[in-house]
Amino acid sequence: MTKAPVIGLLGGGQLGRMLCEAGGPLGYDIAILDEDGCPAKQINVNDKHVTGSFKDAAKVKELAARCDVLTVEIEHVNAEVLEEIATKGVRTASGELRKVPVHPSWRTLRLVQDKFEQKEHFKAQDIPVAPQMALGGGEALAGSLREAYEELAFPFMVKARKGSYDGRGNFKVRGPEDLEPAVEALGKLPLYAEKWVPFVMELAVMIVRTEDDEGNCTGIYPYPTVETVHEDDVCRAVFMPPRKVDAAVCAKAQKVAGQVVRSLWGRGVFAVEMFLLQDGSIMVNEVAPRPHNSGHLHIEAVPYMSQYKAQLHAILDIVPKSMKLIPRASQAIMLNILGGAAADSHDKLVKLTETEYMEGTDVHLHLYGKASKPGRKIGHVTFTTPSPDVDLEKTIAPFVNEVDLIRQQRVSSCAEQLRPVAAPEAKKTSSRNPKSPLVVVTMGSDSDLSVLAAGLDILEKFEVPYDCTITSAHRTPARMTELANAAVSRGVKVLIAAAGGAAHLPGMLASETTVPVIGVPVKATHLDGNDSLLSIVQMPRGIPVATVGINNSTNAALLAVRMLGSHYPEYQDKMARYMKSMKVEVEGKAAKLEEVGYQAYLAGRGQ
Amino acid sequence: MTKAPVIGLLGGGQLGRMLCEAGGPLGYDIAILDEDGCPAKQINVNDKHVTGSFKDAAKVKELAARCDVLTVEIEHVNAEVLEEIATKGVRTASGELRKVPVHPSWRTLRLVQDKFEQKEHFKAQDIPVAPQMALGGGEALAGSLREAYEELAFPFMVKARKGSYDGRGNFKVRGPEDLEPAVEALGKLPLYAEKWVPFVMELAVMIVRTEDDEGNCTGIYPYPTVETVHEDDVCRAVFMPPRKVDAAVCAKAQKVAGQVVRSLWGRGVFAVEMFLLQDGSIMVNEVAPRPHNSGHLHIEAVPYMSQYKAQLHAILDIVPKSMKLIPRASQAIMLNILGGAAADSHDKLVKLTETEYMEGTDVHLHLYGKASKPGRKIGHVTFTTPSPDVDLEKTIAPFVNEVDLIRQQRVSSCAEQLRPVAAPEAKKTSSRNPKSPLVVVTMGSDSDLSVLAAGLDILEKFEVPYDCTITSAHRTPARMTELANAAVSRGVKVLIAAAGGAAHLPGMLASETTVPVIGVPVKATHLDGNDSLLSIVQMPRGIPVATVGINNSTNAALLAVRMLGSHYPEYQDKMARYMKSMKVEVEGKAAKLEEVGYQAYLAGRGQ
Repeated sequence: MTKAPVIGLLGGGQLGRMLCEAGGPLGYDIAILDEDGCPAKQINVNDKHVTGSFKDAAKVKELAARCDVLTVEIEHVNAEVLEEIATKGVRTASGELRKVPVHPSWRTLRLVQDKFEQKEHFKAQDIPVAPQMALGGGEALAGSLREAYEELAFPFMVKARKGSYDGRGNFKVRGPEDLEPAVEALGKLPLYAEKWVPFVMELAVMIVRTEDDEGNCTGIYPYPTVETVHEDDVCRAVFMPPRKVDAAVCAKAQKVAGQVVRSLWGRGVFAVEMFLLQDGSIMVNEVAPRPHNSGHLHIEAVPYMSQYKAQLHAILDIVPKSMKLIPRASQAIMLNILGGAAADSHDKLVKLTETEYMEGTDVHLHLYGKASKPGRKIGHVTFTTPSPDVDLEKTIAPFVNEVDLIRQQRVSSCAEQLRPVAAPEAKKTSSRNPKSPLVVVTMGSDSDLSVLAAGLDILEKFEVPYDCTITSAHRTPARMTELANAAVSRGVKVLIAAAGGAAHLPGMLASETTVPVIGVPVKATHLDGNDSLLSIVQMPRGIPVATVGINNSTNAALLAVRMLGSHYPEYQDKMARYMKSMKVEVEGKAAKLEEVGYQAYLAGRGQ
Repeated sequence: MTKAPVIGLLGGGQLGRMLCEAGGPLGYDIAILDEDGCPAKQINVNDKHVTGSFKDAAKVKELAARCDVLTVEIEHVNAEVLEEIATKGVRTASGELRKVPVHPSWRTLRLVQDKFEQKEHFKAQDIPVAPQMALGGGEALAGSLREAYEELAFPFMVKARKGSYDGRGNFKVRGPEDLEPAVEALGKLPLYAEKWVPFVMELAVMIVRTEDDEGNCTGIYPYPTVETVHEDDVCRAVFMPPRKVDAAVCAKAQKVAGQVVRSLWGRGVFAVEMFLLQDGSIMVNEVAPRPHNSGHLHIEAVPYMSQYKAQLHAILDIVPKSMKLIPRASQAIMLNILGGAAADSHDKLVKLTETEYMEGTDVHLHLYGKASKPGRKIGHVTFTTPSPDVDLEKTIAPFVNEVDLIRQQRVSSCAEQLRPVAAPEAKKTSSRNPKSPLVVVTMGSDSDLSVLAAGLDILEKFEVPYDCTITSAHRTPARMTELANAAVSRGVKVLIAAAGGAAHLPGMLASETTVPVIGVPVKATHLDGNDSLLSIVQMPRGIPVATVGINNSTNAALLAVRMLGSHYPEYQDKMARYMKSMKVEVEGKAAKLEEVGYQAYLAGRGQ
């Protein structure tokens, strides 16, 4: 195989590991910058790996020099060096200065690293976010905190602008008594204050973003909306679909998330975390420009395009324009496995995934190859079911209880409502399919239609997706050219054209496309059809037309079916059956003729 | 987490690699005995790996000493040393002699290594197998071959008892004339003869077998029955469910497979390959006591329990008693990716898996990290759909066509290599390929050849694999029928037939095959070719012939290329280029005419 592009990955934790799990079978070459023995390097042998920290500028350049494109598993990376690599370039082994694209863009990484700036950016895009204000540092902090509660009122959040994740660097100020502790806890960091938002649920949507080389967004592909449940400021569980939330809200969440990601820069997957408020409105919390915990369950729920495969395909810019991220499971739940009090606290949960068989519900274990520490994300379990009716949350109660045990907590599982089942599509009766026909039938004039009817009946009989129209070589030459030129891109495999007299349509179509053209000579008013036949069949060398007998559209259609049959076994089988039926019919007539004699037979036919 | 048991794996090819892909997220510790850089070791860093051959007794013991259980990805291993390890034990680093369980059992491995003994064993269990008899070696061979055809009658198979796979070591004896070649081909190996079984389809069932520590079978879990399609003696495709086979037959196949595996020894997955005969009965071909090509599609079709996860859970004896292997997809098709003529022949197919989006149909690519060699298994693609109504085979036609093209090129280039090397300057240029032509050109008489030459030149120009012969409708009707009937099974996509006078050949061919037939009217001695034209084009309704102009074999060939082009992008591209070149040529002449004027132009042409 020709050499695959080398993808440089900053960070080799569980997200990087799952990226490698996805990339291995796809043949991608992923080089990782992280410490040796990190989760990703355990399952990816590559002599282009770099040992060190993804915050170390020199190491990042060392990796970049070996790669065709760079991406990240975490946003807390050195955005300055990534900007330099993408805009000025990096010295390669051969000494040349080479620019290496970075996806998502360093612009996006720099923006989201400052949560205050991130939300200011969204506000400027008319994307709903919670009211916030910057807080002064040092001496100024106390004063600006006062302004904050005058402006935002209690309770409000004090948050570190940078470097915080999984709830670290957040402090909820319920009242005046919390101001002192807040300063103590976070006083040394650059801070901002955010109005406390009383949300009813947290939603998240993963978005695949594609972009051309000029940096214009070329596509926004949302995954199904999920509900995220946090506990101790860490993601505990994810539900697809969200519990007790109607489809309209999920659609709105996808729309807002798309708006958010469209306003950013670079290719890849982006996680948009949102609050669902009492009134059904949605407020954006924050964005992670990378694979995300809220997207783990898509590995099984959208098995043809996990967020990891999507990340790889997006940064390589090979995402099909028409891609839709429709789940193959009706429901999915993800539970994080967090390290417990002891190194083996989660053994029982893991054992359950091996031994607890639940018919109709699938269990998928993902361990990250990390040593267990209290509260550390060391794995996750995803549960899926094809049934929209199963109470999945109830079904997996033994696992939830085990998670609760590990956390020394209890959770009462709430019953889940049945979702309406999609109504089955109405079965169509005609095989006419103008959207994606295999065969296009056209004629010089509607007067030819009566001749073509028999052929169209054949296409219907063989269930061939076809389209039928009128294009005159002489009256609508442009329209004819258009039809011919579009044939290949429409996926048309055969053209059938009927014409009479100076019958130019089949030959002219053949001159404008590479698709085989079948010509049906239509007997016109004079010359008994000889004019039509000869003007279709006697084409010059170079431009063939498959000509059938005069007025014999039946054979034109059967010929088209045979052409398809050479490549689609279905049509070959149908043709074989059709030919057998003709044989049987003739044998029947022969038997009758032999039985009754020719006079009676003729007499009989006269009836 | 408490230390996971160490699983020792003999062989690190694609099966071992996929075992590691399954085992990684499950936290299993897999140590591999194979050369460094083998597919499995590329994605599994483990300090317990052993470098060397799985046929090397010392290496096998070295691996066993580090493991809690041993398993295999291939049955052609050293069964003696495995017996010793399982029954007597192996010296560990600490010097103690420790027994290490081997699954599947060394008993099973030893049995299946001798295909003759394997079938004798099944016969003794009243499991249906083809009649067979052992053949003597050396002097005795000729004699026992005579007995063989007296007993089994022609045709029968001569097979090597050991070491054969993917059709290697098999020889079909059609008649007395094949006896000599059979002896030449396989004479040095221990052989047996097997009655030729005229099967209608090959079926396979993967079975999970569990066993207690006393060696009693405790469970038999069948995967869904699949249809396997072989080409060039190698698995080409697998269909779930089998095409046009009713559920009762599938259930019977699962039952027979269960019977087979119950009669063997050890834990793990077993592939049972079977023949489906005309009368609906089933005959066992052979067993592979390991993950198998016919089970690849279960990775996606039975996503909660791939054959690899099943292998791991079975040998660790943690399979839930109530486990059912019910597919989550309604249909699945697997296509093997075999190395083509060039190292990058499969690039286009891989690209298709990235860019061809088919809504409702999922594409799953699996590359094995192996360098490409002609015919080598380097990957596979699995297609799944949740819909029972989608015509999956039709949907994936572009992929099937690409696989065909890779094969066509591989076969042609192999044929080329086999041809005796002529003078260096006379390098082979013909695309004629009688073994697997896409187009077959035939004529009523060699006098038509001069007319067909232009068309044959076109086929050469477009590098279309073709065959060319003579079959007269009137002088060799049987031969003509044979050619027509064999067309589909030969993979022929288009027939071109030339004839003159009462030109019956094209129409008669069309009457005997479903393959599209292109007719070339050859101008005979009288009537200026009208006789030929009308007797080809004016076919009765029901049997079409694609007729081109009189003597215009050029257009016949170009039409054939267009028919191929609708399904093979390569030919569509070439046709587009060809049409462009015609345009350029005419524009050139136009320019000249405009420049020099018509008199000079005509004068110039006169020169």
